[in-house]
Amino acid sequence: MTARNAFYAQSGGVTAVINASAAAVIETARKNKSRIGKVYAGRNGIIGALTEDLIDTSKESARAIAALMHTPAGAFGSCRYKLKGVDEDRAQYVRLIEVFKAHDIGYFFYNGGNDSADTCLKVSQLAGKMGYPLIAVHVPKTVDNDLVVTDNCPGFGSVAKYVATSMREAAFDVASMAKTSTKVFVLEVMGRNAGWITAAVGMAADEETPVPLVLLFPEIAFDETKFLAAVERNTQTFGYCCIGVSEGLKSPDGKLMAEAGTKDAFGHAQLGGVGPLVASIVKEKLKYKHHWAVADYLQRAARHLASKTDLDQSYAVGKAAVEFALAGKNAVMPAIIRTADKPYRWKIAEAALTEIANREKMLPRNFITADGFGITAKARAYLAPLIKGEAPPPFKDGLPRYVRLKNVPVGKKLATTFKV
Amino acid sequence: MTARNAFYAQSGGVTAVINASAAAVIETARKNKSRIGKVYAGRNGIIGALTEDLIDTSKESARAIAALMHTPAGAFGSCRYKLKGVDEDRAQYVRLIEVFKAHDIGYFFYNGGNDSADTCLKVSQLAGKMGYPLIAVHVPKTVDNDLVVTDNCPGFGSVAKYVATSMREAAFDVASMAKTSTKVFVLEVMGRNAGWITAAVGMAADEETPVPLVLLFPEIAFDETKFLAAVERNTQTFGYCCIGVSEGLKSPDGKLMAEAGTKDAFGHAQLGGVGPLVASIVKEKLKYKHHWAVADYLQRAARHLASKTDLDQSYAVGKAAVEFALAGKNAVMPAIIRTADKPYRWKIAEAALTEIANREKMLPRNFITADGFGITAKARAYLAPLIKGEAPPPFKDGLPRYVRLKNVPVGKKLATTFKV
Repeated sequence: MTARNAFYAQSGGVTAVINASAAAVIETARKNKSRIGKVYAGRNGIIGALTEDLIDTSKESARAIAALMHTPAGAFGSCRYKLKGVDEDRAQYVRLIEVFKAHDIGYFFYNGGNDSADTCLKVSQLAGKMGYPLIAVHVPKTVDNDLVVTDNCPGFGSVAKYVATSMREAAFDVASMAKTSTKVFVLEVMGRNAGWITAAVGMAADEETPVPLVLLFPEIAFDETKFLAAVERNTQTFGYCCIGVSEGLKSPDGKLMAEAGTKDAFGHAQLGGVGPLVASIVKEKLKYKHHWAVADYLQRAARHLASKTDLDQSYAVGKAAVEFALAGKNAVMPAIIRTADKPYRWKIAEAALTEIANREKMLPRNFITADGFGITAKARAYLAPLIKGEAPPPFKDGLPRYVRLKNVPVGKKLATTFKV
Repeated sequence: MTARNAFYAQSGGVTAVINASAAAVIETARKNKSRIGKVYAGRNGIIGALTEDLIDTSKESARAIAALMHTPAGAFGSCRYKLKGVDEDRAQYVRLIEVFKAHDIGYFFYNGGNDSADTCLKVSQLAGKMGYPLIAVHVPKTVDNDLVVTDNCPGFGSVAKYVATSMREAAFDVASMAKTSTKVFVLEVMGRNAGWITAAVGMAADEETPVPLVLLFPEIAFDETKFLAAVERNTQTFGYCCIGVSEGLKSPDGKLMAEAGTKDAFGHAQLGGVGPLVASIVKEKLKYKHHWAVADYLQRAARHLASKTDLDQSYAVGKAAVEFALAGKNAVMPAIIRTADKPYRWKIAEAALTEIANREKMLPRNFITADGFGITAKARAYLAPLIKGEAPPPFKDGLPRYVRLKNVPVGKKLATTFKV
């Protein structure tokens, strides 16, 4: 059996640990040189495949690849570029196969979320139709934690740990200031459709460290009256209140609160996010002094505070992807299966992409308390193991030392170009 | 010699390491029981003294006090409450002395920034005039790093480490997304008057890890044309650009940019900060997709990422404050003196409060590059040692475990009350 090359690409929003999956794919492939030749990475994700802009990962030292374990974001570049349906734009898929053929790509590893699971499936299907031998495996990754079948998604645990830690720390700050100054603190977090990250903010509080929290989930329409009552109750009881709000919070008419049409003095639209908006409602109606923070990329790039569980699982799915491919499994994804809560146990199992593509796992209603502003014991049991364990990067001169790869291009073999 | 009690209070905005100073004051006092009786802490800062709401720190175990070393924010509560001048409101000072007398307070330790240095001095002076024997020592603390005489201020190094780390991590994220998505990232940081924290953002980039950065200092009036040119140049050259902006950025007419008069659809004023404002200018004029983050309290509460240097110095000033007091030094502050840059060496020296109160140390112009958007080698040499070293808190179940003290009240001895 001749060794064939592999193609690996990162897709969509990056995470603190997606490079651990990259390291796993490359390291596992290197251990199987009789079957897998070189691992080529797409520069800026799938765009790199379409434009034949490939990176030769064999030019990177074992040490550099190992350093991906502690380096956040996408080492080869990612992209937000959704391939259309095969019927709509068959040329894109044909082009992919053309590039794969030119570089003898026999394995396609696509590291992403819902959209890329769908793309991975379509590429696999079209390759089959075109008679091109290709094994396509999706490597799960999304801070949104909304892939189905898998118990959780690599990338989520680290964001969860970051927002819970940050809210806990901010709560200690607000508690000290509340007597004469800030009484209400708002933290806006990611997760436009599903409230997994918002739920993770709830972990800031526990029995040992109670924190008066009000959570605003994207799944629960914003009810200003009930919300203000909850904030007022907390502030009266505890002296302060912390609010975690999803960027995807919606008004009762289903519109995104953040798109309410804010304008500044220069007429710039959409200046603030929903965090400052919610804070301003509190200030206006309850007259409490407030502060607000928007963590934005900080939350998903915070490798310095990554969850060890998340890191381990990110590596495990990358390794399993290559092992699945070597076992001839096509159009599949390594899913994380939880086998026990306490102590937490998990394993990797094979999931068909047909079961995953184009679906979205929302936060179950029974993870949210009846009043809509908190998390239940069920949510806690789910989230607790995912944020567990620390895996700090090496520090040098006081700062985390992250690797930048050489990203040496593979020589082009095709005379044709492709416009994306 | 009879032992007299000590009073300790935290003042103004809290930090990730102010409790290390508290631990030092209490532990050093406990080692000198023949001279210092009990350490009473003001509940919510100086307000606790005015209202005779004192906390008996002797009720806390040695273990709890030691845990203050890794706990952010103000363990006894802080306050934003500036005492007026002695001539304006003598009654406040008289009341303080009255409470001190009732509880046999012979030592006054005030842990804060500029305002509290001034208060500490005034209390010392009035006690002298009233013939009340009191030794007043100021313990420096401010994330703003703007106290004079001392080379740097406890609390600043940890914020500096946090903003530099966060910007570095976000830069890796933006770099991976820039091809098809976000090209410009804005991080708003604290420091309303002095640009020390903004300068620290500049540490995100170094020779090993270049990051295209544009910094907007409070000391340099915002020049939109020059700013946009700098952002455009970076984006064209590197594919992306990161912007660090001070909350105190001013327009050419000297007004705070953040107070430009933003209004949302509901008519709420001042919704966004200067971070989203700067981001919207980039979007409007350069059409680049942007993201922005406002770290707010997260930056000064981030004990999980504290600087070891900062932690050590915060403890050292607390310890020295008690030692100064025991040596009979009045109206002084332990200052941090830098004796060498490389390797960094520092010592604690005594500074007279008359030299410190009512002054403010701005970022020197030669710390800022000629174009006004970066930091110089001089700034780097100053900042480098302050962010050095890690001192993570203990983690339990994936989250930092911070201590909450019992904060047992001292019985009141006065029949009179005082309204603040």
